[in-house]
Order: sequence, then C-alpha cells, then structure tokens
Amino acid sequence: MPITTCHMSVSLDGFVAGPGQSREEPLGRRGGELHRWHLGDERATENDARASAWLMRPRGAYVMGRNMFGPVRGAWDEDWRGWWGPEPPYRAPVFVLTHHAREPIEMDGGTTFHFVTGGFGTAYARAREAAGDKGVDIAGGASAVRQALAAGVVDELTLDIVPVLLGSGERVFDGVDEFGFEPVDVLHSPLATHVRYRRTGSSPG
Amino acid sequence: MPITTCHMSVSLDGFVAGPGQSREEPLGRRGGELHRWHLGDERATENDARASAWLMRPRGAYVMGRNMFGPVRGAWDEDWRGWWGPEPPYRAPVFVLTHHAREPIEMDGGTTFHFVTGGFGTAYARAREAAGDKGVDIAGGASAVRQALAAGVVDELTLDIVPVLLGSGERVFDGVDEFGFEPVDVLHSPLATHVRYRRTGSSPG
Repeated sequence: MPITTCHMSVSLDGFVAGPGQSREEPLGRRGGELHRWHLGDERATENDARASAWLMRPRGAYVMGRNMFGPVRGAWDEDWRGWWGPEPPYRAPVFVLTHHAREPIEMDGGTTFHFVTGGFGTAYARAREAAGDKGVDIAGGASAVRQALAAGVVDELTLDIVPVLLGSGERVFDGVDEFGFEPVDVLHSPLATHVRYRRTGSSPG
Repeated sequence: MPITTCHMSVSLDGFVAGPGQSREEPLGRRGGELHRWHLGDERATENDARASAWLMRPRGAYVMGRNMFGPVRGAWDEDWRGWWGPEPPYRAPVFVLTHHAREPIEMDGGTTFHFVTGGFGTAYARAREAAGDKGVDIAGGASAVRQALAAGVVDELTLDIVPVLLGSGERVFDGVDEFGFEPVDVLHSPLATHVRYRRTGSSPG
C-alpha cells in the first residue's frame, strides 16, 4: 500500500519558516537558513545528499498549502504560477488548498497545479486518487502539515532538524496535541540532523 | 582544557519541562515523558544507555537553577534538600542560583549544594574554580541553560530530542538569539534522538 509522506526542515526552536513571508523572501526572514543542507552549501555531506534524495523521490501526487504555492492572498493574481519557474520539481499533480477557485495550471515536466476549495480532506482524497498505486506527499507549509497530522494521514514524517534558532515565524506543531510517531532512522551532518519518523503502530514500509 | 557541558531532554516542540511544576510533578505536567529514555523504559536501547553514560559522566562541579533544585519559591524552607534523596547523583559541588542566601548543605556521596545570590556569572566562576582541571556541567533547568548560552560558556550541548509534543511549559531557547553550535554526533532510539553539539569554531575536545 502506498504511504503518505511529509518532509519538513525545522529550526531547533520549532519553526519551519521565518516571519514576513513575501515575494522576495518566500520562506520569511532567515527561513532560507533551514534549507542550506540541500541548496549547495559547501559543508553539506553525503548524508545531506541522501536526505535530499528522500525529499526529491518521485511521488504520485502532492498536497500543498496556498502560502507554499505563493505570496498572493485573497483573490488570485492570475499571473502567479508558483515559485518554481516553468518546470517545477514535482512532476505530478499538486493539489493546492485555497479559498479561491481557479482553473488548473499545467506546467512543463508533468506538474499540474489543481486548486481545491473544499478543504484538506477533499484535497487529500483527490491526491490519493490521482496518485493511484504511488504515494502522496504533503509538501507544506506549516498549516497544511498541521491539517495532515490532525487528520492522521501521514505515515512517514521526515524532519531535518537544523541547528539554528529563528525566534519567530511559523511553528509546525502548534495546536497538534499528540505526535504519534517514533524515530526509525537518522542521518546527520554539520548542517542538519535528518530524522525519519514512522507513525506509531504502523508496519514497516 | 576542561570543557563546560550541558545536557537537556527536549520535546519536538521545544519544551524541557511541562507547565505546573510542583512537589508532586518536578518536571511539570507530562514533563516525565521527556526522560523515559534513561528512566527504565523497556524500549530503551544500547544507544540510550550510551547517551545516559554521557549524561552521568563525572564532572568537577555543577551550576543549577533554583527551580531545578526544588519547588520552594521565595524564602527557603530549610527542610528542602533537593529532589534526589540523601545521596544525589552529582558527587561534586553544585552551585544553585537563588535570590535567597542559605548555608551550604553537605549530602552523602560527595555532593554539596552551595547557594549563590550573585547571579549566573558568579556561580559559574565558583564552579570553574571548584572543578579545577575537571569540567563544569550546567545541570538545568531552562532558565539556567539560557543564561549559560547567553554568557557563551557552553562548549558542548547535548539534546535528547524526544518524539513527544508538550504544547506548553518551559522552552529552553526562548530569547536566545543565536544557537552557535553544530551537531557532531548522533545516537538514536525509538525513545529519543540524542544529538551532541559542539560550539561553532571550537576545537575538538
């Protein structure tokens, strides 16, 4: 059975993005410090490369929060087509949570952005159907991940615990009552401690 | 040169103790869940035993916050002699930060509690002097550790990152602007991911 995954880079004080997300700073102030391990830092090691391969492995479909798709709030600016240029790395259907309907956008390389106004459960059901016998990934951001955790659909969660303190921003676990995962694998480098967690009580996948 | 260490068990959402510390619940509500890895849980592994050996290795002296020494607030209840019974595990001088002077208490097994009203810097200087050529450990709790981090005296920090969410309580890194450590060693088990961090720029000890 295909598993649902989620992979987030988090500061030691629990933030997955800094404050003040904008077109210029998609991850908020200092949020980029969470992603050095897979964005070309010269201190990155073989373990970071392995964690990056986990992150980038092909998936059948994705669920993504609107703030991860872009900085636009309210009604859509129809020019906005995501942060990733003409050929996003997903190469599969991506279901974007939003309160504002919009026609799907077909990008180069196999990515199509679908806009879902029916809430997380609807988006996840559509992603599961689109993924067929492949898995679904919850791509982020914090709010989408919280909804996925609350819905109990995540089988495997990977956290890249980065040795920085952001002090403010978006906390991924705020309001999540019970974690419900246990660590099963760890890779580490000077830039991050990559911990793969599996849902408690689930069988090894 | 002897190094100054600190070892804290922390929830994934950044808490080192739950809310409501009391005589009955020294670690606050659910705070005990952070310490299963070294307190006899049957799922503990050899890696937890190794992390416990790090935690319990003999040190020359300790600095401890008052709330870690006991639940007494304000003027001393002279009967209170710590949480650890007649023979505490420290077996060295322990310098307790407090605003209320008190005579030292000599316990069995080599532990003496000294009460220091001059602030963290004074307590740390006395601990360094007492430790001689051995190292000093910052025993906790959250406030004492924050003061030690702000003072820049910690050479090696070990965090046992425990897969639970407490949701509230004491956050160890609140108000600490810069982390200043990088991970150098990791051990993991189902109960905790033990990460040893060394101060950035320090030489291997």
